[in-house]
Amino acid sequence: MVPDGTVTTPKGFLAGAAKVGVRTDWDKLDVGLVYSEAPCVAAGVYTRNALKGASLLVSMEHLANGSAQAIVANSGCANCSVGERGIEDAIKMAQLTGAKFGIDPHEVVVASTGVIGTFLPMDRINRGIEEIQVTSDGGLEFARAIMTTDTKPKHVAVRVNGWSMGGVVKGVGMIHPNMATMLCFVTTEAAVSQPFLARALKDAVDDSFNMIDIDNDTSPDDTVVVMANGMAGGGTIDDGHPEADLFREALRSVCISLAKQQIGDAEGATKLIEARVEGAATMEDARKASREIVVSIGVKTAIYGHDANWGRIVSAVGNSGAAMKEESLALYFRSPDGDDVCLFRDGVPQRVDAALAKACLTPREVYLRVTLGLGDGAATAWGSDLTEEFVRLNSMYTT
Amino acid sequence: MVPDGTVTTPKGFLAGAAKVGVRTDWDKLDVGLVYSEAPCVAAGVYTRNALKGASLLVSMEHLANGSAQAIVANSGCANCSVGERGIEDAIKMAQLTGAKFGIDPHEVVVASTGVIGTFLPMDRINRGIEEIQVTSDGGLEFARAIMTTDTKPKHVAVRVNGWSMGGVVKGVGMIHPNMATMLCFVTTEAAVSQPFLARALKDAVDDSFNMIDIDNDTSPDDTVVVMANGMAGGGTIDDGHPEADLFREALRSVCISLAKQQIGDAEGATKLIEARVEGAATMEDARKASREIVVSIGVKTAIYGHDANWGRIVSAVGNSGAAMKEESLALYFRSPDGDDVCLFRDGVPQRVDAALAKACLTPREVYLRVTLGLGDGAATAWGSDLTEEFVRLNSMYTT
Repeated sequence: MVPDGTVTTPKGFLAGAAKVGVRTDWDKLDVGLVYSEAPCVAAGVYTRNALKGASLLVSMEHLANGSAQAIVANSGCANCSVGERGIEDAIKMAQLTGAKFGIDPHEVVVASTGVIGTFLPMDRINRGIEEIQVTSDGGLEFARAIMTTDTKPKHVAVRVNGWSMGGVVKGVGMIHPNMATMLCFVTTEAAVSQPFLARALKDAVDDSFNMIDIDNDTSPDDTVVVMANGMAGGGTIDDGHPEADLFREALRSVCISLAKQQIGDAEGATKLIEARVEGAATMEDARKASREIVVSIGVKTAIYGHDANWGRIVSAVGNSGAAMKEESLALYFRSPDGDDVCLFRDGVPQRVDAALAKACLTPREVYLRVTLGLGDGAATAWGSDLTEEFVRLNSMYTT
Repeated sequence: MVPDGTVTTPKGFLAGAAKVGVRTDWDKLDVGLVYSEAPCVAAGVYTRNALKGASLLVSMEHLANGSAQAIVANSGCANCSVGERGIEDAIKMAQLTGAKFGIDPHEVVVASTGVIGTFLPMDRINRGIEEIQVTSDGGLEFARAIMTTDTKPKHVAVRVNGWSMGGVVKGVGMIHPNMATMLCFVTTEAAVSQPFLARALKDAVDDSFNMIDIDNDTSPDDTVVVMANGMAGGGTIDDGHPEADLFREALRSVCISLAKQQIGDAEGATKLIEARVEGAATMEDARKASREIVVSIGVKTAIYGHDANWGRIVSAVGNSGAAMKEESLALYFRSPDGDDVCLFRDGVPQRVDAALAKACLTPREVYLRVTLGLGDGAATAWGSDLTEEFVRLNSMYTT
């Protein structure tokens, strides 16, 4: 890990941000730019919501050729459900950004996050794009510019051999295993082939952003984009290259770190719940079961209340669609000392001291482990708890 | 509708309840019996959770032959995830009930609802079964005996030609479109064929209990059972019988009434949200889309806060898996005067006075209508809002 690493940790990536007042009631950086000094191969993963924001639709088109050189992003307005004008505004943002850096507008990724159904204040956005000075230490400002209900910027970077990889993410509400109200941008100076990059991103997203849940919701704006500018030199990383596994693992660890930062900052949350499922009949079953545990509102509220109501966890596994047999299932909490505490095994509840069971749920990070005894499938999911404060925040988001 | 109607409204059905202390910290009726003076054809619909409670497993076996004559139910303990002893206890409950009424134990339906992972206190349950006096006006006591976090008994009856139909339900948490922590029992003195009854029940459940949501969860104990004792006489209702549609409609309206009573009493809720989707490409799409609206935590919390954040409703439709085109979708609230208020149409937000939009969300019952403009599919779903009080209640259920 690189201390304070961001998207500007890799060589040749510059970033910056401005405060233009996209939402007039917000006092924060709200427009940001990332620029690479060299053209990049790029890949994206997008929301599965049938409703897609206009900025996202434009980015999908711009990324279709597998290349990009800049990102323009705003918070405070999702530029979604606003008709043809939303598309025009997103294209205009790309044009202004392209003109600023002297690149083709089609090489610009556009991202917008915030309230659905309001128009972008294009005069202010334009002024922001003009004013921003991109620099080699502007990554943190960019991370701040894309925040909405996030309380802190989320970023990470890792260094591997001769190259590094950095990422930023936003999004702490409308977060569900099929992506979320989230924007994530990852950069690297490694030289990689585009098809390899696209596959590595899909796999990394499956193990990270597709394994987290805050509130069972999926927004129309979700985007994860990775850009690789090749400035590290050396041979192009592709399947079979000696560094292929290293690259895949770097991308996976960057995405998991960012995903866990999202859960750690989840709206109104007090807990990061890690649910590990092992012994599933298949990997896909393990993924389903671990996700259902962190999605279950019954589990989320019980853990918030330090209530060792473990039947809700077994019931969530039963609901997940994964193959399960009650007789071969075991459920463990982790004690504050790091020991396994077995709550259920061989089809029957185990005798556990009530104070010990409660103590397992007291730390900020809570670990649950389920073994299904049916095969070799294993997976991990992360979720937040559900609190009164979450409800309060979400009952008055636009008003 | 029959005022104060219950499962004892139809001729020949008797019921009663006792307070035995299944949960030592509860002071309420917690064991109940229903008995029919004549044998009944019967049908059931059960939870889709792969984890199934022991009482439910025994009932499924007893109902497999399509007949039943009595019900024994308890609250306070789900008799679930307790190993072989759970099965033995449920069989024992059926045996005691059968002996009391002089019928085969296989004609007894057993139902348990409450905390998962605790054993039934069989000595107290047995005493309750012995003590209960079943009477022709005991339906309300029975409805009270199956309540857990419900704040009021839920019951309804309708009278149709020469016969009536009555029902009771419990369950105001772990409620999701695929059934819920719910028990529902419906009785009628109509004479019907068993296969016809089973199909009519499945259809009625699809339009009622499978269209409601409180908290996205599905419990391992859910059961809907209908019993018809034929004491009305006359020809047996079957497909093609002149009263076939009447019977189906009676069962549907009883189930919808009970389902709406559940939402009206949802844990911590302040709203009953009715979501109507019309113009979907298919009926199944309409069902998916209307359910997703009432399931969405973003929608639930916004309506709780009277926040006209309508983008979350459009986004929920997009998430539902139903075919949708933003340009042909329209969204309406219903004003306190009963007028349609259009928030979104032709791909763009409509100008709506903010005070009017808020006023649409102020009543206890809130109506949302989405037209998809793609076909003839239409469906209605009902859900509660999500409140701080729900979180408080669910964070300390077992402790």
